[in-house]
Amino acid sequence: MKLKMKVAALQLSCGVSIERNVDRAVEQITRAAEQGANVICLQELFAGQYPCQTEDHSRFDEAEPIPGPTTDRLGQLAKQHGVVIVASLFERRAPGLYHNTAAVLDADGSMVGIYRKMHIPDDPLYYEKFYFTPGDLGFRSFDTRYGRIGVCICWDQWYPEAARLTAMTGAELLVYPTAIGWIPGERETHGAAQYSAWQTMMRSHAIANGVFVAAPNRVGREGEIEFWGGSFICGPTGELLETAPHDDEALLIADCNRAQIDAVRTHWPFFRDRRIDAYQGLTRRWLDDRQ
Amino acid sequence: MKLKMKVAALQLSCGVSIERNVDRAVEQITRAAEQGANVICLQELFAGQYPCQTEDHSRFDEAEPIPGPTTDRLGQLAKQHGVVIVASLFERRAPGLYHNTAAVLDADGSMVGIYRKMHIPDDPLYYEKFYFTPGDLGFRSFDTRYGRIGVCICWDQWYPEAARLTAMTGAELLVYPTAIGWIPGERETHGAAQYSAWQTMMRSHAIANGVFVAAPNRVGREGEIEFWGGSFICGPTGELLETAPHDDEALLIADCNRAQIDAVRTHWPFFRDRRIDAYQGLTRRWLDDRQ
Repeated sequence: MKLKMKVAALQLSCGVSIERNVDRAVEQITRAAEQGANVICLQELFAGQYPCQTEDHSRFDEAEPIPGPTTDRLGQLAKQHGVVIVASLFERRAPGLYHNTAAVLDADGSMVGIYRKMHIPDDPLYYEKFYFTPGDLGFRSFDTRYGRIGVCICWDQWYPEAARLTAMTGAELLVYPTAIGWIPGERETHGAAQYSAWQTMMRSHAIANGVFVAAPNRVGREGEIEFWGGSFICGPTGELLETAPHDDEALLIADCNRAQIDAVRTHWPFFRDRRIDAYQGLTRRWLDDRQ
Repeated sequence: MKLKMKVAALQLSCGVSIERNVDRAVEQITRAAEQGANVICLQELFAGQYPCQTEDHSRFDEAEPIPGPTTDRLGQLAKQHGVVIVASLFERRAPGLYHNTAAVLDADGSMVGIYRKMHIPDDPLYYEKFYFTPGDLGFRSFDTRYGRIGVCICWDQWYPEAARLTAMTGAELLVYPTAIGWIPGERETHGAAQYSAWQTMMRSHAIANGVFVAAPNRVGREGEIEFWGGSFICGPTGELLETAPHDDEALLIADCNRAQIDAVRTHWPFFRDRRIDAYQGLTRRWLDDRQ
């Protein structure tokens, strides 16, 4: 396996037509592949508009099985171009059982695995707990032609536990498909601070774990939410390699040298010194009874 | 208890005379108290020059018991000014048993608790594993007159586990006494990236846990190390409240409104959604056997 992987993150706006959104993503994947990308990462629920601004039963109709039509189409595309594709989808698993899921399609077109979003938010305009059952597959990563890839999804990005556990399964690249934006009236007062916090958390996951991070985020206004774009790719010391604007679509491509992981982790040997004898409390809700 | 606490972080250079270093710290604590500070945080091992650049048995003579002469003196000072003092010391616990320890002195002069550094580094010029036995008290925080304070120390700052567990004991302010700097030849090529990673990690702890963070760091050249100062205090969305220069001593004071913790955690309810059913792997060294 080559040490260098070229990672792409797509930042797109979505219209109401799923067919058109998928067509546009296919166009951009093709463009990224033509520019030499090896691993191409799509934003959260890329096929549709963000469905969770209201609790609307009709939106479940947008879900699809995995494997299903979209993973089939992307698998063919992955094989055609010899690229890995990370695709986030609204998964219909059974009647009344839906997940927010990412599929990793290898460069031979096969689906090497899925990850189901473990941490589900529920905030005004982000009513995800209504739609998505929390993931039951744990934190994982998958060997692909270009490297071992772990996926976490959006709200997971605020949880160091998720990044750590995914990295401990051997991930070299953590991908965070995301759909985050400003709600009405917040951009001016809190916008910069919110974006900074969001990016800071994921940069910290890169640093703490010595991995590359790619965060493709949605952009553009849908209903009440102004998705803030600002997708980025960073290296294992948290250094920003590529960043996207807040108000436009973007295709980011960054050269990621997997040998850097070994170098960084040897110089910053955080895994060496973890106090696994003293972390039991992490599996508790709160530590009320401690001094 | 008042909601507002004024937090001070002292950034000092140290000479060879312990007596003089402590005297200078006492002067600056007094100055901070006169400026209204309620909680005053000293850098790591503030009483002496950083002892770990070589493995030298004679440096153990610089250690002292806790409680001991320095905590006695600082306790009197805390009582005199009605301030909380967080003091990091080289602890002699028994012959051949030493720790890197922080004592929290309440505003009535009593010592409300100690924390012993849990993660011990060992890198060129930072030979701490030779000197310090890893802490055996776990992660903790302590009620003081001005708020509940948790302490982690230097290398702990790279571990999200430490911040999380300390926050889960109820800490409102996390203090990171630190002695970190550039080794020869690194400042020009890696200096900015190293400082950014260091600050990013601790800002991420503030964000992930909705707490205030104060990081007082040593400054100035000692032997081969150029301690990089850059102390800072940040709020619970990771926003920088005060930062210090890299090349000079500094006294930082920031107003920290504890009510902000409640507001931030309600809007960013990360503790609500932790997947404690899926974090068992965090108590393992690595997850080789997972898919």
